Amino acid sequence: MEDIINAIQHPYFPQDTPIPHYVASKLDMSQSLLTLGSAVAGLVVLSGILIGRARNALSCKDKLILVWMLVCAGIHIVLEGYFSFNHGTLAGKSTVLADLWREYAHSDSRYLTSDPFTVIMEGITAVFDGSFALVAVYGILADSPIRHPAQLITSLAQLYGDVLYMATNYMEGFKYTNPHPMYFYGYFVLMNLPWIVIPTYLIVDSCKSIYRGMLIAQRATSTKKAE
Amino acid sequence: MEDIINAIQHPYFPQDTPIPHYVASKLDMSQSLLTLGSAVAGLVVLSGILIGRARNALSCKDKLILVWMLVCAGIHIVLEGYFSFNHGTLAGKSTVLADLWREYAHSDSRYLTSDPFTVIMEGITAVFDGSFALVAVYGILADSPIRHPAQLITSLAQLYGDVLYMATNYMEGFKYTNPHPMYFYGYFVLMNLPWIVIPTYLIVDSCKSIYRGMLIAQRATSTKKAE
Repeated sequence: MEDIINAIQHPYFPQDTPIPHYVASKLDMSQSLLTLGSAVAGLVVLSGILIGRARNALSCKDKLILVWMLVCAGIHIVLEGYFSFNHGTLAGKSTVLADLWREYAHSDSRYLTSDPFTVIMEGITAVFDGSFALVAVYGILADSPIRHPAQLITSLAQLYGDVLYMATNYMEGFKYTNPHPMYFYGYFVLMNLPWIVIPTYLIVDSCKSIYRGMLIAQRATSTKKAE
Repeated sequence: MEDIINAIQHPYFPQDTPIPHYVASKLDMSQSLLTLGSAVAGLVVLSGILIGRARNALSCKDKLILVWMLVCAGIHIVLEGYFSFNHGTLAGKSTVLADLWREYAHSDSRYLTSDPFTVIMEGITAVFDGSFALVAVYGILADSPIRHPAQLITSLAQLYGDVLYMATNYMEGFKYTNPHPMYFYGYFVLMNLPWIVIPTYLIVDSCKSIYRGMLIAQRATSTKKAE
C-alpha cells in the first residue's frame, strides 16, 4: 500500500512510475524558465566578449555558430553534467539545478528514474559533446584546422543522442511525457528540436568545408609533387 | 498461467521475459557462426576485387580500412537492416537471418523483444552507418575528399551506438545476457568490442588527416591571396 502511495505522489508521467524520494521544487515554472533563460543569456554575453577579443574577423555565420557552441557547452557540461552525477538522487535534491530538472521532467520522467539509456546518453553528452563544443569554440576563435572536425563531432553526437532520445519516447507512445501541450510541445518538442535541426545544418556545413579544404590540399600536394 | 508458460519457453535472459512467438532455430551454433563467417569472408573477397580494380595505388592501411568499411556496410545494411524491418516478428521467423539473430540474442535478448532503444539504434546503424560506410569505401577507392568526412561520420556513429548499447546492458547488470562465458565474452564482448576499438582509431585517424588537410588548404589559400 505504501508503495502505491509513494508511486502516485508526484506529478510525472506515467503516473504510476515510482519516484519514492521525490520532493517538490522551490522554483515554479516561470522562475525555472527565467533561471534557464538567464544562464543562456549569460553564455551569449560571454560569447560576445570572446568574439570582441578574437584576433580574426569572424563572419556573421561563424559568430552565430560560436554562440551556439558556447551555449551548448554550458548546457552540456553544467546542466547535463549535474544530471549525470546526481541522477540517482535528483528527484529529492533541493538545488536550483535539481529544480530545473524536475521542471523539465514534466516532459520526460526518465530524468527522475535513472533510466539507463537517458543516464548513459546524458553522460556522453556532458563529457564528450561538452568538451568538443569547447574545442569548436576555440577552433572558430583561433581559425584553427581543428574547428571543422570538432564542429562535426559535436554536432553528430548531439544529433545521434537527440534522435535516439526523442525516438525512444515516441516508440513507447510518449508515455514518459505529460500530454499537456505546454509540456509536450513547449518542453519535449521545442527544447529538443533545435538539437536536431542545428546539428544537421552544422554537419552539412562541416562536410562541405572539409570537402573543399581536402580538395585544395590534394591539389596543392600534387602540384608540389609535380614541381 | 499460459502467460507464464509462454514466458519461460525460450532459452534467453532474463528468463521471465515474454517472447510469446518464439520458435527454435534450424541452424545450430556452429552452423550460425559458419554462415556469418562465410558472409564476412565473401565481403573480404569483394573488397579484394575492388582493391584490385582501383585506379589508385592504395596503402596497406587504406586497404585494411576499405575491407573494414565494406564488411561493416554489409553487416549494417543486410543483417541489421533485416532486424530493423522485422524486429516485431523476428523471434518467430524461419529464415537464415532470423536464425542468426536468435543465436546472437543469447547474448542480448533485447533483439527479440523490440526493445525501443535497440530498435532505434539498429535502424540508425542500418540506414545511416551503412550508407556512410559505403561512401567511405567509395572515398578510399576514388581518393575523394569525401573519404575522411565519411570515415569520421561512420566511425563516430558506430562508436556512439555501440557505447550506448553496451553501457545500457551494463547499467542493468547484464540482465539481458546469458551469463555463460561463451555468450557473455564470446558474443556480447567480442562481437561488440571491435566497434569500439576500430572506430575510435579511425576517428583519430580522420581527425589527423582533416587537420593536416585543412592546414595545407589554409596555407595554400593565404599564399594565393598574398600573391
